[in-house]
Amino acid sequence: MEYPSKVLGKAVEEISGLPGIGRKSALRLALHLLKQPESQGIALADALHQLVTKIKYCIECHNFSDVEVCEICSSHRRDSALLCIVEDVRDVMAIENTGKFIGKYLVLGGKISPMEGVGPAHLNIASIEKKLQSGTVKELIFALSATMEGDTTAYYIYKKFKGFNVNFSSIARGIAIGDELEYADEISLGRSIMHRTPYSEG
Amino acid sequence: MEYPSKVLGKAVEEISGLPGIGRKSALRLALHLLKQPESQGIALADALHQLVTKIKYCIECHNFSDVEVCEICSSHRRDSALLCIVEDVRDVMAIENTGKFIGKYLVLGGKISPMEGVGPAHLNIASIEKKLQSGTVKELIFALSATMEGDTTAYYIYKKFKGFNVNFSSIARGIAIGDELEYADEISLGRSIMHRTPYSEG
Repeated sequence: MEYPSKVLGKAVEEISGLPGIGRKSALRLALHLLKQPESQGIALADALHQLVTKIKYCIECHNFSDVEVCEICSSHRRDSALLCIVEDVRDVMAIENTGKFIGKYLVLGGKISPMEGVGPAHLNIASIEKKLQSGTVKELIFALSATMEGDTTAYYIYKKFKGFNVNFSSIARGIAIGDELEYADEISLGRSIMHRTPYSEG
Repeated sequence: MEYPSKVLGKAVEEISGLPGIGRKSALRLALHLLKQPESQGIALADALHQLVTKIKYCIECHNFSDVEVCEICSSHRRDSALLCIVEDVRDVMAIENTGKFIGKYLVLGGKISPMEGVGPAHLNIASIEKKLQSGTVKELIFALSATMEGDTTAYYIYKKFKGFNVNFSSIARGIAIGDELEYADEISLGRSIMHRTPYSEG
């Protein structure tokens, strides 16, 4: 498509480089910005510039952070004995949103996936070792995807660190709240009946 | 949702201000940018900044342009006797993409819509008058949406300028009533501009 203006064409090209946004959507977004007060577009541009140039990672857990050690890692209210291993920053946010976890996190930065060329060396596994060596961690909780790669990653970490005096656990797998049994896949249903929990009234 | 970093939170907030992008999609886009080389995010931010601060409008047709008079208006290959009235910049791009029109354009900047508080005074109707007074225009072609507002706008312009020695035509209604021009396929749109019909009050 020919654009009547080079700055418009360039903007459409850059916006359509984002995942899930084609050229028509990109053009729609660009024209939307042009209809708003100039300050809104500038604020968006500045926020994106800040995002990619200013963001830092917590040196302890590898979550995003504006400071060297993130709020969760530096908090005295969080229980250092519980270390929750997640793949991604979004998983930290998802678990934090539940408000049910008081421990700390370690963001692996992915999962072992030979198909995609991701091996243990690409993940923040050395940071787990450092945490375990400090001796404060009593339980290491896997909160990884219920996929082959997630299971492989958990198994690798378990094998590597089972010599440490620490308990390993994994978030419960089963039927999601609100799911109908007949639509659950066989593997989930099978696992959930094997790993059944004592019934409680709560 | 709580974000682990203020720059991330700010970026998500600004991205989710765009139409059709919720906070989850905005977060996904922000995290995507953080996985790419920093230069890609900077290029996007710069392109958006340039877009909102540098874009200009052609003083003749009100299309976007990097120069005072746009390429189409200043081209000697385009027929100044044909003036195509469109609502929006996207409509110019859509018609240009068909490659079927050799005349010039005038971008109204909207359509008359009492419901949305848009009256003739908000549109570039004075520019049509200036074009007609110059005496070069022989045919005025309405390429407006096939909606009540589009029809009202065409009728208003027809009534206002029917005293000029100019033929009025309208793109053929090969497009279903209620459709917006920008979503029409190129073939239908190309045919509808080739088979334009004399404008009549009915």
